[in-house]
Amino acid sequence: MADPTTRQPCVIVTGGAGFVGSHLVDRLVERGDSVVVVDNVVTGSWDNLAHLGDRIGRVEADVSTGLGLDGLPAGPPAHIDAVLHLASPASPPAYLQRPLETLAVGSEGTRQALEVARVHHARFLLASTSEIYGDPEVHPQPESYLGNVNSIGPRSCYDEAKRFAEALTMAYARAEGVSVRIARLFNTYGPRLRAEDGRVVSNLLTQAMEGRPMSVYGDGTQTRSFGYVDDTVDGLIRLLDSDVEMPVNLGTPTEFSVLELVEAVRRVTGTSAEVVHLELPADDPTQRQPDITRARELLGWEPKVGLMDGLARYADWLAGQA
Amino acid sequence: MADPTTRQPCVIVTGGAGFVGSHLVDRLVERGDSVVVVDNVVTGSWDNLAHLGDRIGRVEADVSTGLGLDGLPAGPPAHIDAVLHLASPASPPAYLQRPLETLAVGSEGTRQALEVARVHHARFLLASTSEIYGDPEVHPQPESYLGNVNSIGPRSCYDEAKRFAEALTMAYARAEGVSVRIARLFNTYGPRLRAEDGRVVSNLLTQAMEGRPMSVYGDGTQTRSFGYVDDTVDGLIRLLDSDVEMPVNLGTPTEFSVLELVEAVRRVTGTSAEVVHLELPADDPTQRQPDITRARELLGWEPKVGLMDGLARYADWLAGQA
Repeated sequence: MADPTTRQPCVIVTGGAGFVGSHLVDRLVERGDSVVVVDNVVTGSWDNLAHLGDRIGRVEADVSTGLGLDGLPAGPPAHIDAVLHLASPASPPAYLQRPLETLAVGSEGTRQALEVARVHHARFLLASTSEIYGDPEVHPQPESYLGNVNSIGPRSCYDEAKRFAEALTMAYARAEGVSVRIARLFNTYGPRLRAEDGRVVSNLLTQAMEGRPMSVYGDGTQTRSFGYVDDTVDGLIRLLDSDVEMPVNLGTPTEFSVLELVEAVRRVTGTSAEVVHLELPADDPTQRQPDITRARELLGWEPKVGLMDGLARYADWLAGQA
Repeated sequence: MADPTTRQPCVIVTGGAGFVGSHLVDRLVERGDSVVVVDNVVTGSWDNLAHLGDRIGRVEADVSTGLGLDGLPAGPPAHIDAVLHLASPASPPAYLQRPLETLAVGSEGTRQALEVARVHHARFLLASTSEIYGDPEVHPQPESYLGNVNSIGPRSCYDEAKRFAEALTMAYARAEGVSVRIARLFNTYGPRLRAEDGRVVSNLLTQAMEGRPMSVYGDGTQTRSFGYVDDTVDGLIRLLDSDVEMPVNLGTPTEFSVLELVEAVRRVTGTSAEVVHLELPADDPTQRQPDITRARELLGWEPKVGLMDGLARYADWLAGQA
């Protein structure tokens, strides 16, 4: 029998082989948690966790059909303290290619993860998204903003899946007494965001580093906030450890237009790559900016890594991959 | 072998033992369709279909776990021409008591129904709802209005389940080529809406007929539109038979305040029942009114039954139940 006074907290991370998930796993392992990652490695990769060796448990499973914890060599964990549900395709090209899978992991995958939390009386954290605000008509967006999502648009496979996941999470909190946390993540970038991920930072940086023209959708005046992954993970850990059951925005309030991002990328990479303007995709939000008052006041959190610094670190990682 | 030139169209109706569903089944049977009803009779009842005897097939199943068509005495239908997905708790007391089941039938139930449509190359009709507009900031609501739903509020178990169902339906249309129809039903009333259903018309009428005080939530100035079920079913049939793949509002544009409804109920029932004001529930929309331009133009549909006439017919039915 393990001595409960010295037992490491056991944390399940779905999507833990993904970009944000793998950084979160690093932090949890660093602080001594016992971590089991469940991932189907469709958009994630075990490579992101290779450096952790046998310090973590790994289950290759589609959480939409169950977390597969029975498949662990030593059997399912006897105690689970927290279930962190990050599994989902997260970049538009990834989810637009997999609309049914994206809807499944947001609904049935979230239910499977919540069931594990319910059975183990474990804390549950949902990685939700700024996409639940859709194309917002309020700037910046506080958590109380109800959003402006097109339920039948092409992106609804992601946006509505995440809105559903929030509703399901709250239903488990209300009906089953599960202790829940909901993080609404805004654009995040950094090492392990794949060059081909399709998000604007990885696209522009990769193109610039390869001396190719940089793709700007529309006129480039649409604004985004860009959060460095270390800051995002710091916020997730603080939220997990807090008693805050309300949704919390985690993002960087500093807004940049895509054209300003292009300039920053040119400076960081030292290139003078041209811009090529492409057609704006359907339902692309024109502006997105977090109001992080709640995270500041309740979690004492705010982002610390500036754009130039973060871009430089990400560029270093991308260069190491080439 | 059935002669395909004389074969009756085979239509599956999930939730066909419910209030709207059973009227829809009546109309389909009337016009010669071969109908199979799938219902778990949690909020519906086989009593609603008793008069149809052996003219329909019945499967008692929770569509969230499958449509159970193998359970039919003659086996599953060889051909299915249409799947009409109406299964869901639909009144606030019903879904607030069953949040997890409501989320399940909107997500997994819709997926199961869409899978049957996909496999059979059948047309799929989703009964969506005006609740996807939430507490609207635009009046009346056209189908293009994106809504104002609180993803974490108590009613989100219904609203987000239906928004998810719309997103899933469109994903099957785009990714799998399923021919889909989406009806957004506004408040509907009429025979077979159970006295204890909890919706405002059944509440007030039942109370007045029993000489009890009529419950008005809040000050009663919130407005609603009330559609008579025969009109709703006429709209559903027209939509099913049309080639309209966009969502279509089906409701009555005439707005009444709850206090005006109280007056109409008093006239119809000939009572002078008092009003008692109760606290407004969380997230109760203050106004809801359909813009039915699309139904008028594309389906040639508009409601025909006025409020006094409809209330009188519904009161007759309620009296027969007592």
